[in-house]
Amino acid sequence: MKKFVNDPDHFVAEMLEGLVLANADTLKYVPEYNLVYRADMPSDEKVSIVQGSGSGHEPAHVMAVGRGMLDAAAPGGVFSAPPVEYCLECLKRMNSAKGVLYLVNNYQGDRMNWDMAREIAEAEGIKVGVVVIDDDVAVQDSTHTVGRRGVAGNFFVIKAVGAAAERGASLEELVALGDRVNKAVRSMGVALSSCTPPAKGTPIFDIGGDEIEMGVGIHGEPGRSREKIAAADAIVETLFQAVHTDLPFNGGDRVALMINGLGGTPVSELYLLYRKAAQLCKDNGLEVVKNYVGEYCTSLEMAGASLTLLKLDSELETLLDAPAQVPIRVF
Amino acid sequence: MKKFVNDPDHFVAEMLEGLVLANADTLKYVPEYNLVYRADMPSDEKVSIVQGSGSGHEPAHVMAVGRGMLDAAAPGGVFSAPPVEYCLECLKRMNSAKGVLYLVNNYQGDRMNWDMAREIAEAEGIKVGVVVIDDDVAVQDSTHTVGRRGVAGNFFVIKAVGAAAERGASLEELVALGDRVNKAVRSMGVALSSCTPPAKGTPIFDIGGDEIEMGVGIHGEPGRSREKIAAADAIVETLFQAVHTDLPFNGGDRVALMINGLGGTPVSELYLLYRKAAQLCKDNGLEVVKNYVGEYCTSLEMAGASLTLLKLDSELETLLDAPAQVPIRVF
Repeated sequence: MKKFVNDPDHFVAEMLEGLVLANADTLKYVPEYNLVYRADMPSDEKVSIVQGSGSGHEPAHVMAVGRGMLDAAAPGGVFSAPPVEYCLECLKRMNSAKGVLYLVNNYQGDRMNWDMAREIAEAEGIKVGVVVIDDDVAVQDSTHTVGRRGVAGNFFVIKAVGAAAERGASLEELVALGDRVNKAVRSMGVALSSCTPPAKGTPIFDIGGDEIEMGVGIHGEPGRSREKIAAADAIVETLFQAVHTDLPFNGGDRVALMINGLGGTPVSELYLLYRKAAQLCKDNGLEVVKNYVGEYCTSLEMAGASLTLLKLDSELETLLDAPAQVPIRVF
Repeated sequence: MKKFVNDPDHFVAEMLEGLVLANADTLKYVPEYNLVYRADMPSDEKVSIVQGSGSGHEPAHVMAVGRGMLDAAAPGGVFSAPPVEYCLECLKRMNSAKGVLYLVNNYQGDRMNWDMAREIAEAEGIKVGVVVIDDDVAVQDSTHTVGRRGVAGNFFVIKAVGAAAERGASLEELVALGDRVNKAVRSMGVALSSCTPPAKGTPIFDIGGDEIEMGVGIHGEPGRSREKIAAADAIVETLFQAVHTDLPFNGGDRVALMINGLGGTPVSELYLLYRKAAQLCKDNGLEVVKNYVGEYCTSLEMAGASLTLLKLDSELETLLDAPAQVPIRVF
């Protein structure tokens, strides 16, 4: 295993310590629960927005904690759901008179643990709402899911409900908004390589030197097909076709287009992919109003990328344009 | 070779097309010269700030073109200097009554081509200044350099002179400022893996499964030593020690601390490295006033990272805090 790590069992804790050291003025940290939260939250003036899933997908979700995005994140270990007590502590600490909304990507472990935490929290008088994200069109059921997986489209749910929460939206309004975003967003990914969880020490799947996994999951779950590597444009066509026909998107739609890196692919290649994706949008009459090229939801150091399309409306465009302040800043 | 690419000879052009498609409102593009520039520049009210080096280091430098940063970039092919005519076209297009400042990392090819372009431009009446960046403490001379290499510290020069240029500084003031930043910044990197230029198709160097290259250059140039991989904290100590003793930095100094990913290392690992680097700063009495964790100057998909320290003063702190707007945006 070749990565920057000390004791593999401390990988997540040491990453979180680094994150909080780098943002000491805005973030607080409760090590016992892997809990990272906004130093100025909770507030009874605002619904708290929280999320927690397996680690290894950074910047999702701990690096999305900040004004206009998440109020807290409570990640589990690498590729493993946060325990119930992490979820519960997160709900309790972020308790607000307006309620707490948790966002959960559709994986059985995450959903089960958050559901149990929700039951306990509600019994203690906390008002809790949930939005489930399942934007990955690759396969219907998967290794860890009944139904579709949640992947990079999750970003758009965070951004929309995060912005609306800052404007004072109610819990019920935010649940409806989050569900609406989830229904309007579709993604699919492709892997050029596997990745190695620190505590496992070996790759999560084998893949040949000339192969790609089309429709891969962010935990290395099988996709639609194992294929020989093709030209970048052909790969983008396959991703675009799968996403475009699924909603379906129609000529005249205004969309947000995201090319998300899976962790080991440099941004130069992501822009090369964006070029073809933008051309395909144009060819199909889609107007790309907003674009996102970079890493949003990764799979450790996996080489690969995903393509996400979100169908916009005027409210969503306004929410995506709203200010946000998160730990990840580039310039 | 396993990467997202069509024709390797079109790799840079297709990346630039993607970048410009994604920023059609703010960037202009002259394909014949790989020239990307701000749509609202040049202006006789402001010195133009430009840079061009080999591609493969993105976001440096084409993705640093924007308000408060670079006005234009004219990259060459992957790991090869921009031809003289690219540099010259860049200087001509960005000609301003206040002058044009080019920033050049200390590599022989880059410096020679920019110098020749400068001579021609000056003969045509263009006022040109230059700042050379050589922040890499790893080795004194290197494969492509007489003297030290320029690496991620370059970002701080861009940010400082970019901000000062927006405030109306003269060419002479900007040259002095750029030189001052370069004298105050030190970096060193480490590679866990090699990388593969698209047109070459094979890795630029061989490295064993349990080896690291300490002090690596961003084109895979040899560093100080080939070592067995160690714990992340021990690697950070080596990087920090090399950088810290070189300036030297002293207790009480206010500093900016950057952990820069080399392209294939996920941000989770970068924050794990940041944790130790921040601790070492504290142990040595350095106050980390600003921090940067992410990718600033990469080497294609190389797994690895570099550590940069900049000694601050009140003027530099103000300039680093100035607004900037570049194509790379995360949230």
